[in-house]
Amino acid sequence: MAGAWEIVRRHGQDPAKFAAALRDFHVETPSWGYGNAGTRFQVFAHPGAARNIFEKLADAAQVHRLTGICPTVAVHIPWDKVEDYSALHAEAEKLGVKIGAVNPNLFQEPEYMLGSLCHAGRAVRRKAADHLLECVRIAREVGSPAISLWLADGTNYPGQGHFRRRRQWLAEALEEVYAAMPEGMRLLIEYKPSEPGFYHTDIADWGSAYVLAAHLGPRAQVLVDLGHHPQGVNVEHIVATLLGEGRLGGFHFNDRKYADDDLIAGSSNPYQLFLIFNELVDAAQDADPAVAACAAGVAYMVDQSHNIEPKIPAMIRSVLNIQTALAKALLVDRQALAAAQDRGDVLAAEAMVRDAFETDVRPLLAQFRAEQGLPEDPLAAYYASDYPRRIATERGTGGKGWA
Amino acid sequence: MAGAWEIVRRHGQDPAKFAAALRDFHVETPSWGYGNAGTRFQVFAHPGAARNIFEKLADAAQVHRLTGICPTVAVHIPWDKVEDYSALHAEAEKLGVKIGAVNPNLFQEPEYMLGSLCHAGRAVRRKAADHLLECVRIAREVGSPAISLWLADGTNYPGQGHFRRRRQWLAEALEEVYAAMPEGMRLLIEYKPSEPGFYHTDIADWGSAYVLAAHLGPRAQVLVDLGHHPQGVNVEHIVATLLGEGRLGGFHFNDRKYADDDLIAGSSNPYQLFLIFNELVDAAQDADPAVAACAAGVAYMVDQSHNIEPKIPAMIRSVLNIQTALAKALLVDRQALAAAQDRGDVLAAEAMVRDAFETDVRPLLAQFRAEQGLPEDPLAAYYASDYPRRIATERGTGGKGWA
Amino acid sequence: MAGAWEIVRRHGQDPAKFAAALRDFHVETPSWGYGNAGTRFQVFAHPGAARNIFEKLADAAQVHRLTGICPTVAVHIPWDKVEDYSALHAEAEKLGVKIGAVNPNLFQEPEYMLGSLCHAGRAVRRKAADHLLECVRIAREVGSPAISLWLADGTNYPGQGHFRRRRQWLAEALEEVYAAMPEGMRLLIEYKPSEPGFYHTDIADWGSAYVLAAHLGPRAQVLVDLGHHPQGVNVEHIVATLLGEGRLGGFHFNDRKYADDDLIAGSSNPYQLFLIFNELVDAAQDADPAVAACAAGVAYMVDQSHNIEPKIPAMIRSVLNIQTALAKALLVDRQALAAAQDRGDVLAAEAMVRDAFETDVRPLLAQFRAEQGLPEDPLAAYYASDYPRRIATERGTGGKGWA
Amino acid sequence: MAGAWEIVRRHGQDPAKFAAALRDFHVETPSWGYGNAGTRFQVFAHPGAARNIFEKLADAAQVHRLTGICPTVAVHIPWDKVEDYSALHAEAEKLGVKIGAVNPNLFQEPEYMLGSLCHAGRAVRRKAADHLLECVRIAREVGSPAISLWLADGTNYPGQGHFRRRRQWLAEALEEVYAAMPEGMRLLIEYKPSEPGFYHTDIADWGSAYVLAAHLGPRAQVLVDLGHHPQGVNVEHIVATLLGEGRLGGFHFNDRKYADDDLIAGSSNPYQLFLIFNELVDAAQDADPAVAACAAGVAYMVDQSHNIEPKIPAMIRSVLNIQTALAKALLVDRQALAAAQDRGDVLAAEAMVRDAFETDVRPLLAQFRAEQGLPEDPLAAYYASDYPRRIATERGTGGKGWA
Repeated sequence: MAGAWEIVRRHGQDPAKFAAALRDFHVETPSWGYGNAGTRFQVFAHPGAARNIFEKLADAAQVHRLTGICPTVAVHIPWDKVEDYSALHAEAEKLGVKIGAVNPNLFQEPEYMLGSLCHAGRAVRRKAADHLLECVRIAREVGSPAISLWLADGTNYPGQGHFRRRRQWLAEALEEVYAAMPEGMRLLIEYKPSEPGFYHTDIADWGSAYVLAAHLGPRAQVLVDLGHHPQGVNVEHIVATLLGEGRLGGFHFNDRKYADDDLIAGSSNPYQLFLIFNELVDAAQDADPAVAACAAGVAYMVDQSHNIEPKIPAMIRSVLNIQTALAKALLVDRQALAAAQDRGDVLAAEAMVRDAFETDVRPLLAQFRAEQGLPEDPLAAYYASDYPRRIATERGTGGKGWA
Repeated sequence: MAGAWEIVRRHGQDPAKFAAALRDFHVETPSWGYGNAGTRFQVFAHPGAARNIFEKLADAAQVHRLTGICPTVAVHIPWDKVEDYSALHAEAEKLGVKIGAVNPNLFQEPEYMLGSLCHAGRAVRRKAADHLLECVRIAREVGSPAISLWLADGTNYPGQGHFRRRRQWLAEALEEVYAAMPEGMRLLIEYKPSEPGFYHTDIADWGSAYVLAAHLGPRAQVLVDLGHHPQGVNVEHIVATLLGEGRLGGFHFNDRKYADDDLIAGSSNPYQLFLIFNELVDAAQDADPAVAACAAGVAYMVDQSHNIEPKIPAMIRSVLNIQTALAKALLVDRQALAAAQDRGDVLAAEAMVRDAFETDVRPLLAQFRAEQGLPEDPLAAYYASDYPRRIATERGTGGKGWA
Repeated sequence: MAGAWEIVRRHGQDPAKFAAALRDFHVETPSWGYGNAGTRFQVFAHPGAARNIFEKLADAAQVHRLTGICPTVAVHIPWDKVEDYSALHAEAEKLGVKIGAVNPNLFQEPEYMLGSLCHAGRAVRRKAADHLLECVRIAREVGSPAISLWLADGTNYPGQGHFRRRRQWLAEALEEVYAAMPEGMRLLIEYKPSEPGFYHTDIADWGSAYVLAAHLGPRAQVLVDLGHHPQGVNVEHIVATLLGEGRLGGFHFNDRKYADDDLIAGSSNPYQLFLIFNELVDAAQDADPAVAACAAGVAYMVDQSHNIEPKIPAMIRSVLNIQTALAKALLVDRQALAAAQDRGDVLAAEAMVRDAFETDVRPLLAQFRAEQGLPEDPLAAYYASDYPRRIATERGTGGKGWA
Repeated sequence: MAGAWEIVRRHGQDPAKFAAALRDFHVETPSWGYGNAGTRFQVFAHPGAARNIFEKLADAAQVHRLTGICPTVAVHIPWDKVEDYSALHAEAEKLGVKIGAVNPNLFQEPEYMLGSLCHAGRAVRRKAADHLLECVRIAREVGSPAISLWLADGTNYPGQGHFRRRRQWLAEALEEVYAAMPEGMRLLIEYKPSEPGFYHTDIADWGSAYVLAAHLGPRAQVLVDLGHHPQGVNVEHIVATLLGEGRLGGFHFNDRKYADDDLIAGSSNPYQLFLIFNELVDAAQDADPAVAACAAGVAYMVDQSHNIEPKIPAMIRSVLNIQTALAKALLVDRQALAAAQDRGDVLAAEAMVRDAFETDVRPLLAQFRAEQGLPEDPLAAYYASDYPRRIATERGTGGKGWA
């Protein structure tokens, strides 16, 4: 089994550096991914789904215990609101995880029906901004490094809102929030082209998020959710561009076939996931320190909606798929690739990238896990443990992740 | 104002025939369109939203009273389930409307998480087929002419289901239902490419619905929902093809920008709505009696989700937009158009169709309404009535349309 | 017929200001639009299609003579290359038009197969940059105000090129070109998501063009081609955002159903064209002088491919459709609209915008033309003239616009 | 190396049957794939590109010699027109290949600008039908088993053509052609949603092709080109449906990112290619003989446009990618999969399919080739041969594949 590393050498890579890159890689799982979720048509209940933030943390800790790559948990306010955040912080540490990004919620209060930070009414905008400021405070208390903002604002009809006025209100609110953030805290600005606003969304694409971030300052960056692009968009190219500009802040991993389907990462288009990591690995190894630093700072996070599958196994599957994509990307021989690109050898260059993808890295990752003291097959280990049966008994059909 | 008909003459049309076509045109509104609705993120409450089928019928009757074109109401089982369907029938008649299509629900029972008619378990399939048979019985009792089937079955992941086995189960169930339908009742088969199944849906496109219908018999037809197509599809061409094959059964009108957004019909792409009516009017006037009969039998229905706007005004706006599209399509001089097409005059042919669309038919429709004893501006009349205030008081923030 | 202005007053607008806005509006037509064009499958020949830049200028002058709104002509180098540019300048003036934007060509030399400014080879990049510098010189000579750059660079396969290196080469080249441009000359940077590069294009979206422009300086702006967006993108929102940032430089008008179809503007989705003008008019009237100045400086240009229709009539049709969209947008009562938006009246706000679109402005535009001494129906006037017959005789089946 | 078969056994498959399935699999390459090709913007010349049908046959024979899976060559009339078809037949045999499907051309004659079989003029329709009849005669002479029809007919503007009349003309012409086909010859009907008709195409989707085929008879079937679907469509589901109806006739393999990009098969979305083969293998092993027979009869063909890469290597790459997808699909344990599906184990079912895809079958295929007396790495063998240098010398920059 130790021979699994042979494949790394055969691709011209140093096993020690390869293993180090795998060890450095972490994926944050979201608290809301451990509760029940669904579509606008129905939320189906799953036995054992977590009912509150403490159960969510416990589940996330299981995922980390088995995979070794999920030491942090994103929280959502107010879904994960508690009286005492230092107690929450302590509970997380006790379980062997930490609180990750704090995610504000600007889409469920009745006042937000027509917008929050972009609402035409000053009072609603104030309330929304205050919620962000509250999230900054919570982030301080729980030791979180980032506010991860998905703004659900948008409109359904032409004429309903004034694009430029809304954007100005948005920019003003973000300035206030940015100013309130302590040193070392980042604002990750997510974009999304549709839903729940169907005619327009106020932060529709990476360009829109970039411009906001650029006006704010260096600690404002763009968050890429893999399901938030129109069909046909080259996401890895966007990733590369943001890395080049020092503005790639993080990811929400998931997969989709048509819209923002929030499926398991890598389940629909695994090649795309690999190609994204191909850019990330490339940037991490870049000679330009600014680019490498940006790559090193990227926050990798899962954001999915496991509507029909058991929550914890789906999360394990997801983070393993993401780790697989990274491992394959680490196999690419970048010097040889650059040489093929430089001589205009289209087919050779394509083959080098595809070859890494076609390589089966599962034995290698099993070996890596064994060396880390982790189960070689985390999903099998989960099923073999008594955890699934225990939570099914304790929690019944569980609670909704999103409420 | 009577001069409003002048525009009809100027387009080479006979005002009497034009008025007759407008009088013959009806749009069915859905009971669920009068209750609160939303996205997967939130359902916002609207003052006065209907809380049960009786309030929904009352609201639908208001829409018909003001517009004169909405004499029937689609119902959804079990959302509109009652003890006594003949009483429901009677109540509708008392209000001046009739029950239209009966819509089964195969997506909210816990058993249906992985499918209903296409579920791998025989017992679930049996339950689902029984629900359809129940809907046939209800349709008989309330005098409904059609079962309108949207099958939400689908999968989220490759491998999750076996496409061809699922389809066979589906075909078998529909045969049983078709056999149970009395003479004169139609089965309208809706298609949809995505949601809630994100990887595949069992009836994904018109071809899939058509093949099922063709195997069943002449009273099985295809239902076109305007939001149920991938981007870039030419929907009016599908409409024409189904008319030519005698298989166009009905419509679910709505509009969208990206996915199945369920916005007000004609609010996002009014030209498309007009071009669809252009095909319908053309077929209705066809020399081939089979084509004309198919066009004459089309069931026009609204299916929208008014998430952020008041329900009854949104419904009035919708049916007026649909009527507007019809009126414009009636203006097209089909003989002149055929002549331009025959001589290969691309720009002249295009101009004739666009000209009808660019013509402002609102004065004409106002005049038509006045001649029918209807308010010239139904929406203004609604706001001027005491109905909105009355229901806001009586119903509070209302009930959900979909539960 | 003078009563045609009544409709302007009824929408709360001042006819004098309305007429002034119409008079100020110009659309540039492209020289290449007067020659034969086609798809990758075939270029069909049209009788009378222009065979060289002088015939193209003559045709463009006809379009201006009849419509009064097309005083400038975009040229493409090397398609429109001549020995003596001051002679070209003089010839244009003689015909009553001026040379507009100069469009470089970086996609037809054999060396450019794998890229031009983004090519891995320094010599190719040098050649490409030199071509841009040559275009700057030509622009000076012919008095052109802008270089309009569509960069066709891209790749077909993952791995073929290095995204970030390519972007760096691009940025360096543009800096050199920008520095060479005289005061008052603008660089308009076009974006396009696909074709001829199918896997990636180096300037794929407005965000990518914006970032390049922002790094260059204030005279670098973004050019929006209506066919250069993935499906489902809200183009008017992009337009508004760029106006708000002072970076909207110009348009390439056309329409499409699926990809970059280059159809007649407003022929596929006229509502979208109107909504774009709705943003332009709104910005032109903005209290913020920077926004109004940006709107005032926008270069309106047509870029279409009339594959199956006669060239000059298609161009007349196009610019009339564009003028129609502007006239409708000028009808919107912006104060009333802002009030409806402020009070959250979704349906009223939507109605105000839609109402302007539903209004038939053709009688008004006919009247406006008559007052300007122009034919009321420019297309009919063209067909009635001897120009079409004369060029058909003189030019035979014409020449290709693109070679 | 013989141990490469171990992986087959580990997936519960019989190596002998596995090898037999690989031996039975053939992919037809297209004559036009060996000449130069491009986009509407430019056709770049490649050293050694074939200049006529005899050079194309020679190149195709090379691909077959090295891969062992390409024994037939599709021809295009009139691009491959010759005086003496029996001589062509003999030349092919001499080279070790056979003539495959005959592809008519209904899009390059000047008369076809506004359509061929769907043209409004009877004379043009007659000419187009006569061309198809000529292709049937040629197919008889060269021993071809199929007419592979891509109909380029469509329109660019609403109103330009009458959808239903065009469809009737099309149906009539196909009836005549079908009647002229000898026993054993098939008519493969391709569909495509856009280009070169941008507003509508007369055979836009599989449903449209299916209905035509169903009206014609059992030897009319549907041809699936992987690039001919709107974004987001589940192509493997269409494949399964057509297999279930006995109407899947063949494939045009290629890949794409946005539109009909005609890239190397499997280069953009290799998982999709695998999932399509997953359906084909499943159907071939079906207990229903009609389904298995349909699968056995499928014509596998490449249709790509190698614009920037050398032709023969690109073709070898393509057919190897296709073979790889097949080999992976053969690994799926269908009994275990059905069991997981039956018990509703979403994640286990998904894992079985993904596992086959993640398995690296390249060593296995190398071993299989060695056992067949073929080079283990056909592309390396090609580059090592003197063929590339010879044709570069003999043919210069080559000829266009499409003219």
